Order: sequence, then structure tokens, then C-alpha cells
Amino acid sequence: MTRYDIAIIGQGPAGLSALLNAKVRNKTVVVFGEDSKALTQTSSIKNYPGFEDISGEDLNQKFKNGLKNFDYQINYKKVSQVYAMGDYFAIEDETHEIIEASSCIIATGRVINKDIKNEGKFFAKGLSYCATCDASLYKDKNVVLIGYNEESIEEANFTSEIVGKLSFVNMYKKNINLNDRIDLIEGKKPVEFKGENKVESLVFDDGSEISADGFFIIKDSSKPDRLVPSVKTDGPHIQVNKNMETNIRGLFAAGDVTGLPYQIGKAVGEGQTAALNAVKYIFNLKNNKK
Amino acid sequence: MTRYDIAIIGQGPAGLSALLNAKVRNKTVVVFGEDSKALTQTSSIKNYPGFEDISGEDLNQKFKNGLKNFDYQINYKKVSQVYAMGDYFAIEDETHEIIEASSCIIATGRVINKDIKNEGKFFAKGLSYCATCDASLYKDKNVVLIGYNEESIEEANFTSEIVGKLSFVNMYKKNINLNDRIDLIEGKKPVEFKGENKVESLVFDDGSEISADGFFIIKDSSKPDRLVPSVKTDGPHIQVNKNMETNIRGLFAAGDVTGLPYQIGKAVGEGQTAALNAVKYIFNLKNNKK
Repeated sequence: MTRYDIAIIGQGPAGLSALLNAKVRNKTVVVFGEDSKALTQTSSIKNYPGFEDISGEDLNQKFKNGLKNFDYQINYKKVSQVYAMGDYFAIEDETHEIIEASSCIIATGRVINKDIKNEGKFFAKGLSYCATCDASLYKDKNVVLIGYNEESIEEANFTSEIVGKLSFVNMYKKNINLNDRIDLIEGKKPVEFKGENKVESLVFDDGSEISADGFFIIKDSSKPDRLVPSVKTDGPHIQVNKNMETNIRGLFAAGDVTGLPYQIGKAVGEGQTAALNAVKYIFNLKNNKK
Repeated sequence: MTRYDIAIIGQGPAGLSALLNAKVRNKTVVVFGEDSKALTQTSSIKNYPGFEDISGEDLNQKFKNGLKNFDYQINYKKVSQVYAMGDYFAIEDETHEIIEASSCIIATGRVINKDIKNEGKFFAKGLSYCATCDASLYKDKNVVLIGYNEESIEEANFTSEIVGKLSFVNMYKKNINLNDRIDLIEGKKPVEFKGENKVESLVFDDGSEISADGFFIIKDSSKPDRLVPSVKTDGPHIQVNKNMETNIRGLFAAGDVTGLPYQIGKAVGEGQTAALNAVKYIFNLKNNKK
């Protein structure tokens, strides 16, 4: 069986950056996953240095263009499990096929459970999971933010400085510290998004409805430790040090899966750091074997 | 006196990424420093995602283009000292003018003492301080790497896998673990680089000379703690956590100054993380004051 130098799980900004840097260093690489919807469905990106204002679709294409002169294996199947085998990793896909690699980089992004009806349908059509990324699209507009965690309070306070009017649907806890400009909605549960081509309103369980130009949902991602048993996590994130090393030798993580901020530049930087340290790890592994 | 929200020391990839992200978040910013020579003098960059192959000059221009719609203050004077004053920073420039900011991001890159004659003259003209960055320019070519530290051993081993022939000038310690393909040069000291438009050869203290297509010098940067007294360092690097926070409240660091890998993507990611956490810091600072 071919054993790849590096397996990369995820084809978002972190995964593609790791792939590019691994290939510049002449490593053999297999990459799993599909294009990142969080990237390709974003209409306008203004904070990835090098581009003034670019769509996620176009930026994804530019990321891929930089890879076209390199050979690497793409596996579009879903990874069901990553097994740490000591000096290599066995990666099992959904068809139970096993692929081996000396090191592995987890760049799976955030996996968010979709709880409100039509949440998936309207993602990136007026509905976003990242206020930091998209709040600037709603200058002087009406925005509703549905918050489930501590982070959502911070995001609401930030967002209120940028948008015209912000309503906060509090699904977190009592007595939160919001600034005065924010309209607080409490005591009812969001159940359904409505709209034609984009989301236009949110319906609550008491039948009431609120319209807005944009909606944000801020909640925790699913836990990533189902993919790799025994990897150390910190809530919904994989714990890494500044070399992007996890608690498992040869296993690295990069991008949204390692924590805030959920941003393209941060993911690209971490993907690069993870790949270069994976290259170093493989070199030492091979050298110590002699 | 105007107190800026954020002062950024350094205009390389980390500083410009921090600036962009601070401005997207509507903060007032003053940025110190000149364009990064480490960036602008690099002839070919193949591992910054989004560009297939771009010169440092062009990439720097693209970074600046993304900032042209924002207002910010540039101060080209050199910063002599950053004083932590509790809830703000006083930044003194070389003319003893003081500028105040609520938070500060150190993105000064690496400061390298130039010890070999003509080292400055030939920088980026066949001479580089980053093998990871530039080794791929010398596929099948002759390269000389002058190594002063542990990192240089790793870089030599990596570089030898990419270039045609590598000679390692060992200025570090005895009994280093180099791979077989590397030519080891020991027992003499490099004193001068020679060449016309680009570096062509290196002269040693015994009068001998070695020619090559490219030269790398791998050594430690100068210590960054002269700029900010009492900032915690780790050798030549400022210690940061994954939020890019230093040991001083409100002080962040990003880019090469925080450590390896010395790479544009990593610097851009850290600049972004530093800026977004500085924004969060300022928000909490203002809120707690009320």
C-alpha cells in the first residue's frame, strides 16, 4: 500500500494552504473533502490581504490555481475515522477503504448542527455563522443575531457598532451584558426562516415574526473528537500549540477547527504552519528510523 | 492628545494584515515603519495562497491596495521605545515624539545583525535568510548555506532535498547530524561576499573561496525586548499565546517576531488574530470603564 507523507482532511483555506506548502516541500499528499461551502458561498471578502474585495468562489479558484502544477491525490469521500497507529495514520473513508499517511492534518472547519427550519437553505443568502466576517455587509441595515453562547454576546456588541440596528435573540443565559443600542428578544424560541431567494424573516414558537436584512446565528460547532478518538479538545475545538501540533504525535490541526477567530487569513497561516511542521516531523521520523 | 485605538509597529505582512482587520472593524490606527524589505526584495513567492507566483514588490502593492479605502495614520519614523502605561501605551519615536494608543501590536519582523562583508548589499540578490522560502528557486543549482544555530541544521537537511548540491558552512557546533548528500565545510570563517549584480562567491578567512548560485545565512535574529521593556521573550522571539497576546495586557505580537516559520501566510494569519483580539481587548477596556 502507498503510504503518503501527509494526509489532509479538509479542502477549505487551511487545508489548501497546508497542501500548497507540503507540495512546495516535495511531499506526497492525499487530501480529503469537498470545497468549503463556508468559503465558496461567501459573497464578499474584504479582509484577506492581497485582494480588495473578492467572492469566496473566486478566492477558492485562486487557491486552486496555485496548486495546478503540483501532483496530489484528491479523495472526495467522507472520512469516517482517523486512527493513530504510532508512526503512521490509518484513515478510513465512508466506504471502509483505508489510506495510510505518515502524518495527518485535520482542517475540517466547523461543523454546525442546523436546528432551525430552512437554516441550511438560506446559508450565505442573508444568513451567516460569522458576524466578524459578514457584519460589514450590513452597514445601516437591520440585523438579527441569534446567540447561543458567550461568544455571541461579544459578536453582538461588535456587530451593533457596524450595522444600523441589531436585535439579539437570547438563547444563552440570563442577565447578559449587551450594550444599550441592542434590542433584546427573550423568552421565545426561533423555529423557522422564511424568504424567497434570500432569508427575509424569522418565525418564533409563539407565532410572532421578525424581518431583517441579515441574520446571524452564533453557536458552538459540533465536537471534533469523533473523527479522531483521543485527540484533546477544548469544547468544540482541537487543542493545538503554536506549531499546530495536537496531543497525538504526527497529528496537526489548522483553521476553524482549532478555534477563534473563524477567518480565512488565520486559517491560511495555520495551514502553512501545520504543513511545515508536518514536513519537519516526517524528516525526523525517517531519520530516526535509519 | 489623540489616543489611537491600536498602534501597529511594522508594515510587513503581519502589520498590514493587522491594519486591514483593525480598519474593517472601524478602529483608529497608527502604523509605524517602512515597507518590509524582506517582502519587497523577494523575487518570487509561490506559497502565499491566492497567487501562483508573485514578486514581493507586487504582493506588497496588493496588500496596500486593500487598504486604500480606509483612513489610517502612517508614521515613517523609527520607534525607539514602547512604554506600557496600564490602560494605554506610549510609543516614543526617534525624534522623542510620544504617540498614545489603547493597544499595541508588535510586528517588527526579524532584525538580523549583518556580520559578513557585503551581506546587506547582496540581500535578495542571491542571498537569503530563509531557506524554507527560497530554496525552491535553486532546483538543480549549487547552494551554500551558512549555519549558526540548530535551525540551520534542519534547514540544510530540507534544502538538500530540493537543490542540486548543498554545501554547509558549519558555524554552530561539532558533530551535527547532516544528511549524506551535504558537503560539510568546517574550521574556517566566512568573511566576505563577492559578485557583480548578484552574489557569486564567498571568501573565507584562510583566503579560500567558494562559488555558488545561491547563498543562505541561517542565524538568530536580534532580541526584541529592547523595544518593549519587560516583554517576555523566548530567545529572539516575543512569547505569545494563540490569541497573539504577550505577557503585557493590551500588547500583542504577530509575524516573524513571534517565531518560526518565517512565512508570509503565517504572518498574515497572526496579524489578523492579533488585530481581532486587540479589538476585543479595547471593547472590554471601554466597557469596564463605564
